[in-house]
Amino acid sequence: MAMDGYRGFLGLLVSALLVGFLCVLFTLIWVLHYREGLGWDGSALEFNWHPVLAVTGFVFVQGIAIIVYRLPWTWKCSKLLMKSIHAGLNTVAAIFAIISVVAVFDNHNAKNVPHMYSLHSWVGLTALILYVLQLVLGFFIFLLPWASLSLRALVMPIHVYSGLLLFGTVIATVLMGVTEKLFFALKNPSYHTFPPEGVFTNTLGLLIVVFGALIFWIATRPQWKRPKEPDSILFQPNGGPADGMEGAIAISSGNNMDKSDSELNSEVAARKRNLGLDEAGQRSTM
Amino acid sequence: MAMDGYRGFLGLLVSALLVGFLCVLFTLIWVLHYREGLGWDGSALEFNWHPVLAVTGFVFVQGIAIIVYRLPWTWKCSKLLMKSIHAGLNTVAAIFAIISVVAVFDNHNAKNVPHMYSLHSWVGLTALILYVLQLVLGFFIFLLPWASLSLRALVMPIHVYSGLLLFGTVIATVLMGVTEKLFFALKNPSYHTFPPEGVFTNTLGLLIVVFGALIFWIATRPQWKRPKEPDSILFQPNGGPADGMEGAIAISSGNNMDKSDSELNSEVAARKRNLGLDEAGQRSTM
Repeated sequence: MAMDGYRGFLGLLVSALLVGFLCVLFTLIWVLHYREGLGWDGSALEFNWHPVLAVTGFVFVQGIAIIVYRLPWTWKCSKLLMKSIHAGLNTVAAIFAIISVVAVFDNHNAKNVPHMYSLHSWVGLTALILYVLQLVLGFFIFLLPWASLSLRALVMPIHVYSGLLLFGTVIATVLMGVTEKLFFALKNPSYHTFPPEGVFTNTLGLLIVVFGALIFWIATRPQWKRPKEPDSILFQPNGGPADGMEGAIAISSGNNMDKSDSELNSEVAARKRNLGLDEAGQRSTM
Repeated sequence: MAMDGYRGFLGLLVSALLVGFLCVLFTLIWVLHYREGLGWDGSALEFNWHPVLAVTGFVFVQGIAIIVYRLPWTWKCSKLLMKSIHAGLNTVAAIFAIISVVAVFDNHNAKNVPHMYSLHSWVGLTALILYVLQLVLGFFIFLLPWASLSLRALVMPIHVYSGLLLFGTVIATVLMGVTEKLFFALKNPSYHTFPPEGVFTNTLGLLIVVFGALIFWIATRPQWKRPKEPDSILFQPNGGPADGMEGAIAISSGNNMDKSDSELNSEVAARKRNLGLDEAGQRSTM
């Protein structure tokens, strides 16, 4: 990565972190200042954990999990470590999301309100189930060492697509949740009289859209991908690092596949390289 | 494109068209059967044009506009023709979206309801303004012949990203609109008692998510991209078509840029090739 590309990346990363923190902060202000606060007693206090955990875990932590491979200073770390961080963050996001759903079910039970009647709940629960499925499949196929390289190459484009699609769907679900809550709760004064809570929470919705847009941009720039290692180095254990990187470019470009397909075919080689590579050699790949 | 890849593409395209038609059909059934019907008198009849035009134009037509370059049988057509179709469909989508917004403003004026108070309206109007901006910029930079190739190469990744982001944002806006309308309109029987209209319109929301997912998959598979022509053919006007395609693969893969960057650098060459190329030569690039 050239120096100006690196600066551009840092600028976008800091923006994403800042907007992400603002999303969490705005959600906390919403429930603590405008709503009833937080608690775990079946009341509205428990319901309020729903937006807090959904935005913190399912939006912010998931967003960071998506871009964690893109941080240039992690390119020295082994792929296994980075996969563990990616899986760990997504697990945290899933746990937050599950607790956030439990909070709503508890609250509905306490109030005798039916479950799962709104479009928000249909899309949200579908997304959560598929998210857990994606996590489990990712764990068995990419993190555990037993899946074949050809299976990983087959599943990787689907994994990347599903991950981004689920992230977008979660954001859409949060926007529906905000809409639903404001139409439901803002009666006196009504939402359409522009009460401070309405304007404030609309702003939160816009911030969540901006956070999603930043994560999508960072996650889809080809020049910010973790450099991949060539398939061929598997068969050339004594190949030097410089040769290795040139080989990567030549090989990955010779076919018409998604670049991510071939990237994962060489973890063993990558770990070997990470052990033997000097600082300057690494930096030349950034 | 290999034959099984072609069949996979056709299957997904037919699914996308089918789900897209179902979205439009469900929206029509919603307003004609469950709501008041259609009209243009400031009443609810006029409001009902809002979901019909938004789903038809801003979701369905925009979705088709996004994948129009991916239809293999159009790869023989000139890039200029395909750009005109892409721009034309997006213009239709924009006009539908603008009329759909006018319908709501008329209806709010007639009922003395304030404008632009909901998150749905904030995100939706922002998306519409940026969509029109994207259309105008795309027209001047990519369709008119005056922009330099380097400017086009610079803007293309932003254009692709913005297009997909706006499509996703429009879908999220529609889901908020459905949520808002159902919480607003379903009072007796209430939304939470699972009335037929609630279940039916939730299903419409799910169909719109599935349509978006199909379009995103089709639009992001690298193997279904319109084959690009090499930059170098600009400087090799007598190069044969087979050489040209090999050159394209070698050149596009030799750098680290997004493949779409280099694709547009050779329209003149592409049109030359389209004139001189025999059927078999073309088919070899699919």
